[in-house]
Amino acid sequence: MADRAALEELVRLQGEHVRGLKQQKASAEQIEEEVAKLLKLKAQLGPDDTKHKFVLKTPKGTRDYSPRQMAVREKVFDVIIRCFKRHGAEVIDTPVFELKETLTGKYGEDSKLIYDLKDQGGELLSLRYDLTVPFARYLAMNKLTNIKRYHIAKDFDIAGQFDPMIPDAECLKIMCEILSSLQIGDFLVKVNDRRILDGMFAVCGVPDAKFRTICSSVDKLDKVPWEEVKNEMVGEKGLAPEVADRIGDYVQQHGGVSLVEQLLQDPKLSQNKQAVEGLTDLKLLFEYLTLFGINDKISFDLSLARGLDYYTGVIYEAVLLQTPAQAGEEPLGVGSVAAGGRYDGLVGMFDPKGRKVPCVGLSIGVERIFSIVEQRLEALEEKVRTTETQVLVASAQKKLLEERLKLVSELWDAGIKAELLYKKNPKLLNQLQYCEEAGIPLVAIIGEQELKDGVIKLRSVASREEVDVRREDLVEEIRRRTAQAPCAC
Amino acid sequence: MADRAALEELVRLQGEHVRGLKQQKASAEQIEEEVAKLLKLKAQLGPDDTKHKFVLKTPKGTRDYSPRQMAVREKVFDVIIRCFKRHGAEVIDTPVFELKETLTGKYGEDSKLIYDLKDQGGELLSLRYDLTVPFARYLAMNKLTNIKRYHIAKDFDIAGQFDPMIPDAECLKIMCEILSSLQIGDFLVKVNDRRILDGMFAVCGVPDAKFRTICSSVDKLDKVPWEEVKNEMVGEKGLAPEVADRIGDYVQQHGGVSLVEQLLQDPKLSQNKQAVEGLTDLKLLFEYLTLFGINDKISFDLSLARGLDYYTGVIYEAVLLQTPAQAGEEPLGVGSVAAGGRYDGLVGMFDPKGRKVPCVGLSIGVERIFSIVEQRLEALEEKVRTTETQVLVASAQKKLLEERLKLVSELWDAGIKAELLYKKNPKLLNQLQYCEEAGIPLVAIIGEQELKDGVIKLRSVASREEVDVRREDLVEEIRRRTAQAPCAC
Repeated sequence: MADRAALEELVRLQGEHVRGLKQQKASAEQIEEEVAKLLKLKAQLGPDDTKHKFVLKTPKGTRDYSPRQMAVREKVFDVIIRCFKRHGAEVIDTPVFELKETLTGKYGEDSKLIYDLKDQGGELLSLRYDLTVPFARYLAMNKLTNIKRYHIAKDFDIAGQFDPMIPDAECLKIMCEILSSLQIGDFLVKVNDRRILDGMFAVCGVPDAKFRTICSSVDKLDKVPWEEVKNEMVGEKGLAPEVADRIGDYVQQHGGVSLVEQLLQDPKLSQNKQAVEGLTDLKLLFEYLTLFGINDKISFDLSLARGLDYYTGVIYEAVLLQTPAQAGEEPLGVGSVAAGGRYDGLVGMFDPKGRKVPCVGLSIGVERIFSIVEQRLEALEEKVRTTETQVLVASAQKKLLEERLKLVSELWDAGIKAELLYKKNPKLLNQLQYCEEAGIPLVAIIGEQELKDGVIKLRSVASREEVDVRREDLVEEIRRRTAQAPCAC
Repeated sequence: MADRAALEELVRLQGEHVRGLKQQKASAEQIEEEVAKLLKLKAQLGPDDTKHKFVLKTPKGTRDYSPRQMAVREKVFDVIIRCFKRHGAEVIDTPVFELKETLTGKYGEDSKLIYDLKDQGGELLSLRYDLTVPFARYLAMNKLTNIKRYHIAKDFDIAGQFDPMIPDAECLKIMCEILSSLQIGDFLVKVNDRRILDGMFAVCGVPDAKFRTICSSVDKLDKVPWEEVKNEMVGEKGLAPEVADRIGDYVQQHGGVSLVEQLLQDPKLSQNKQAVEGLTDLKLLFEYLTLFGINDKISFDLSLARGLDYYTGVIYEAVLLQTPAQAGEEPLGVGSVAAGGRYDGLVGMFDPKGRKVPCVGLSIGVERIFSIVEQRLEALEEKVRTTETQVLVASAQKKLLEERLKLVSELWDAGIKAELLYKKNPKLLNQLQYCEEAGIPLVAIIGEQELKDGVIKLRSVASREEVDVRREDLVEEIRRRTAQAPCAC
């Protein structure tokens, strides 16, 4: 066994060595030699036939959802989907993986995070990284120029050539509607425009080739102070200190439509075509946001940059100002819970003739929202029902399994959500306890006497009251007792 | 470029050579040498910097879903989820990929179909192949011994130690409820038991080691005639012809509970402990299915074997007898639309101490069902609405964008599903046409006069009737006009 362990260690070290060489961008020949060594070592090692040490876990970065967590998710998704439907969106779906080349060159510095699938001797595939690039691929492939759609209950987009800022304003309205309905606390939507950023970089004297990398430095301003960002720009990215200072003067500003108007008068920015286009659009956007009654939720923030390469116009990001303070709750801190923007060039990257389809969209940070809602429910020690069962079919005496099966089947066929214990002769107490635990409100109890009388004893779990109901009236009575407020579907 | 093409061809050939060697199970050293050659060639080739020939497609074996297809899916999923909830199931979710070792050794001959992810220098991952193995991993990891759950609207399982055949009967009831509700035509559920199959193989004289492979031959009987299956057993799998004939006598039988009773008297089978256990359970199962009123949908079929290794008891598979004949419709043929069974050993494979959790479940063949429903709708040329929009906010004159934005925002805030065209000055005709195409039933028309009078003109798209509604009554009037039959949620 010692030999095998040593060999395994050698393989591991050689693997690290190869990865190191790759990071140092060593020559192809050098890497190839080392890979050959690695393969040789692995061949010596042979298949591992020792007792299997099995680790029971999900892959790094993934998680399971328990019934309780799924019940929370379902409520959150329900709010989001209702809103998307209210705004007339269709729904599409795309596969979990895409051709590798579909995803290549779309994300900028984030593309390190893409998972590739192992070569199966056919196509090179990768797991999708977001829903926006697959959506753009879908539009190009189906030659669609117009669509309003949502995707897996968290991404919403409007594609098409329209009058300026109307779809953009609707995306912001949708974001505000969803965040208000979810009742996860006060929020603010930061808005900026890639054209304003680019114009600002130009007038500050940033070389063209450095726009994207300086943009990703600016994006860090919500987490670290300006001094640190400046150090990165000057030290790591080789920007002249006076250029960085000029950027600093701009990106530390935020405000409402008055800041937009002020910058339109800015002696330098007003000379830059791109910046003026961006500012003029933002001014119009603010008009529409006022008509939508959400302008007080919006802040024009020059430090908002968004990480992804594909944005071309308006960008936005919603942050929670503070999670509602609850007894015993850990503060979750401020963070982005929804974001998006305009990406007018992405579909053209897929079209053989480069035809463009302007798009604007948003994505809801559902995982973050789930955590917030979950944490709050835990702090409140609130009970979350994980099923919707209306009634448990129970029996008070032994030898009534057949009668229980017959009754529960009748109820299912009438559309009632019903359960029974999978035991031949369960105790009544156990059946009642099951209802308490699962939050089932009613119990339909069968007994010898009830069978003779053609009735079922219907018990309310909360009040413990019992009444005899004629069997033919049972379905109606259960419906009546478990009817909720008129639903909004 | 000619050099490059030649090199590319060499790489291709060398790649094929390596794959060939692997299939021939050549020695590790031999393969390793050839891999090194391949790598050398690839290094010479270098990166491809020629003009990128981009192929716009989804990965092999995957597809996109259009809004129309998603609308069909939503209806199908709605039926399925309603049924799962009616039976008191909780819902869980697990990640799209799993550790490779979680999936290894669970599927038998089907495991070739598993996609591995490329080594990211960390864990070895694979895309999940079904939802059953992740479910079993979830139970073992969370030390759960009891749960009734569904997963992504298509898999339903009951885990736990219960009195025999009650959960199994409920699974069959669920399958029948769903297939009836979907109205995709008449169906039959074939039922068998792995223990009956194994007992039958034993009494026919199949060597123990060949049980699984002979089982997968039997599984083909729904597609090819007995003679072909026999040839495979004898020719490819080395079974003695007289053993195959004995199997043939059994597997060509199917019927109801009377066949179960007959086989319990079978001189050979009645001597085999496993077979008797399986037959006894099936007899009990038929009793429960009769109480559930679905025994006429069930056929005990000795040729049903199911491909996957993990089944241990009752197995079942629903087939459509015939898709409903529609004018111009291509017959889709008979095929499996739902299936499942009992797998009492799978959770134990994940548990460090091998503790078992008995499970029984079913999976709905949603893709196949979508195709059937889609094809039928196409044959009927039925229009499928892809949005739920209740009203379009329109204007009869120019310069009313602001008024349209204000009104649509009011409607959204009141929970009405509303849209507007993203144009400053759309023509009324275009707005009405949009409603016709999208199936929007109502139009709220704003005009100068209406604004002065404090009313909105509400138009029914179908009847073309228009009435003036006071603005404060508009929401209520839209709700009233678009109210559906009381919903069943």
